[in-house]
Amino acid sequence: MYERIEGGVTAPAGFFAGTAHAGIKKGEGPDVTVLTSEVPAQVAALFTTNQVQAAPVRWCRNRLASSSLARAVVVNSGNANACTGEQGWRDVVSTAQAAADALRVEESSIWIASTGVIGVPLPLDKLIPAVRMACTQLQRGPRADEHAARAIMTTDTYPKLCAVRVRLSTGWVTIGGMAKGAGMIHPNMATMLAFVTTDANIPSALLQSMLREAADESYHMISVDGDSSTNDTVMVLANGAAGTSPLMAGTEDYARFIEAFRHVHRTLAQSIAWDGEGRTKRLEVTIRGARTVDDARRMARTVISSNLVKTALFGEDANWGRVLAAMGRSGAVFDPDRVSLMFTSDHGSVRVLDAGGPVPFDESLAKDVLSAEQVSIVAELDDGEAGATAWGCDLSYEYVRINGEYRT
Amino acid sequence: MYERIEGGVTAPAGFFAGTAHAGIKKGEGPDVTVLTSEVPAQVAALFTTNQVQAAPVRWCRNRLASSSLARAVVVNSGNANACTGEQGWRDVVSTAQAAADALRVEESSIWIASTGVIGVPLPLDKLIPAVRMACTQLQRGPRADEHAARAIMTTDTYPKLCAVRVRLSTGWVTIGGMAKGAGMIHPNMATMLAFVTTDANIPSALLQSMLREAADESYHMISVDGDSSTNDTVMVLANGAAGTSPLMAGTEDYARFIEAFRHVHRTLAQSIAWDGEGRTKRLEVTIRGARTVDDARRMARTVISSNLVKTALFGEDANWGRVLAAMGRSGAVFDPDRVSLMFTSDHGSVRVLDAGGPVPFDESLAKDVLSAEQVSIVAELDDGEAGATAWGCDLSYEYVRINGEYRT
Repeated sequence: MYERIEGGVTAPAGFFAGTAHAGIKKGEGPDVTVLTSEVPAQVAALFTTNQVQAAPVRWCRNRLASSSLARAVVVNSGNANACTGEQGWRDVVSTAQAAADALRVEESSIWIASTGVIGVPLPLDKLIPAVRMACTQLQRGPRADEHAARAIMTTDTYPKLCAVRVRLSTGWVTIGGMAKGAGMIHPNMATMLAFVTTDANIPSALLQSMLREAADESYHMISVDGDSSTNDTVMVLANGAAGTSPLMAGTEDYARFIEAFRHVHRTLAQSIAWDGEGRTKRLEVTIRGARTVDDARRMARTVISSNLVKTALFGEDANWGRVLAAMGRSGAVFDPDRVSLMFTSDHGSVRVLDAGGPVPFDESLAKDVLSAEQVSIVAELDDGEAGATAWGCDLSYEYVRINGEYRT
Repeated sequence: MYERIEGGVTAPAGFFAGTAHAGIKKGEGPDVTVLTSEVPAQVAALFTTNQVQAAPVRWCRNRLASSSLARAVVVNSGNANACTGEQGWRDVVSTAQAAADALRVEESSIWIASTGVIGVPLPLDKLIPAVRMACTQLQRGPRADEHAARAIMTTDTYPKLCAVRVRLSTGWVTIGGMAKGAGMIHPNMATMLAFVTTDANIPSALLQSMLREAADESYHMISVDGDSSTNDTVMVLANGAAGTSPLMAGTEDYARFIEAFRHVHRTLAQSIAWDGEGRTKRLEVTIRGARTVDDARRMARTVISSNLVKTALFGEDANWGRVLAAMGRSGAVFDPDRVSLMFTSDHGSVRVLDAGGPVPFDESLAKDVLSAEQVSIVAELDDGEAGATAWGCDLSYEYVRINGEYRT
């Protein structure tokens, strides 16, 4: 019902992106992105549930409480502006002012996100000129999208972007997105930022509920290391520039659109999980036959987050006892005596547990299945109709190296 | 009020321990331990909260439901007898029968614990003769205690034991204990076993409530890797052999005894946490000035469990932002703007956050503080009177190596 197209956040009509080099993040590349909409866009957003919230998160929460419209989003990488006290708040205000002046829009229509080191004041002398510069570089198209997605990266190893088109009854609409995040990734968000744009016409309340639904099966189903951050933000901007009729829940158009919308969020979430710090393998965990979706999600998330499962995957060891133990401590209700477990990859499949009983299996086949770059663990509970999938990665020496050295 | 003495589980009067080599665990050493009391002992016990429970755990739960008396505990290492279906249950029954016959006591007075690999049937042909042999080797004293503590080890690098004496109004009583566990250690227990004995006279219900109190500040406050297991068991045996009067809550004797009792549990828990797989450093996290003990414990446990805090410690990096972020996602309520944070060790102290504001600090001093083998993180919340301490360790390359290779 939808088709993948090239590009990211400027694929939908009326969106522009510009980047600039502030020198806050190490290296030569741009570290400031400005994303704009030529008309005010409806905004839906979700933020970290961490008690410690960065200044830009507090700024966006305030925006969301007073108005759900945005003209621009300013993102810097390399400094999270978290745990920076009153100064941090003043710096957000200054950043918003600079962007509002440069774009000639209201300061209250500027949304802000930051990612990077915690507890270090933002170097405003570098940031403000870069924000002004980025506002003069606004462009559309796949190159602009990739530059924008690269400029928000921290320890990411590749830019994360996605775009789709979907035909509604009153015309084509487009959805585009970009995201960043590779560490501190965990259920209920993490140091991750995701920005999704669309030129569809979507009322504010509906947009927020659609985002919640999509987030539950995407960003909330990934884990790299169990830590969640002070800065997590997922933001959707809908500017209506495609000229289609307002989307209404329960319609055929809605069904088409939400399917495409969920695809974009799921793709961005997967690409975050699979760029996990130090990753050597991609892991997908699927739970089937659970009593409730909540139980299925809880189990999938606990398995994907288990250090013991992750290290076994790194070691290419079909250690299914750790999988079952993780399911067991997830808080979900199920009957261990009915569980079947399978490891599967491009290299084949191996069933290790059948209705609660260990299945003798060929260790060399199992090793071969697990030697693939992407591995799935499938658990069938035979207990109901509900299912869920979570995405993550292995835990390697490299993860330890990266995180033992990150700040210094 | 109490004094540390040499020894472990046979330090209290009337307890004996014997070990034997069954060849279930790799290597030459004994892997079966039988601990007996010459008179029936009151038992209190806590078990894993994992939904998947090993056969020996189910056996002990049944025992506890019907009677709180024990004559012996049989422990094997190398095989957890978990996820072994009906066969696993039959094997527990056979083991209890063999021990009951050898000791000439009721089968229902035999308690059982297992630790090791999941999903592999117990090799009964090896286990039963070894149980019989261990029953002929019953001895008392520090050597017997150390042998018993070694025989229950899996990936542990040292035996864990502790004993204290305390004077009550009607005479001296002794408390002894042993424990094992190095991986799968997490709040609310893990693949850990702990056995504590005492010759004090303690009514069953009181003993169980004392164990809960002690566990909340010991085993529930340690974490190695966030995984909890199918086999966790903490068991206390009180046989009254010292001839003292029955302990009663609220008395001076009770206050003396519980202080010593808590010390033994805390010492065993610490020694588990500090033998964490691949550990290069011991970590202690103390929260002070919290609104409630529950909040303080929640924060301490989340910090001690954070992969990012643990890898930063491994890298000797004073990355306090990760500490604050972990506190923030713990679910506890506090005001980030009032938090002060300090790293401290034998090498000195460094304050990094003061009332919510970053304190410029000497990086080389911080590096030196963190280079010690034992490091404390102290957070002062300035929000109340409650506090808590948790124990854990760093996350090293070696942890990844051990757990990538454990089963194979």
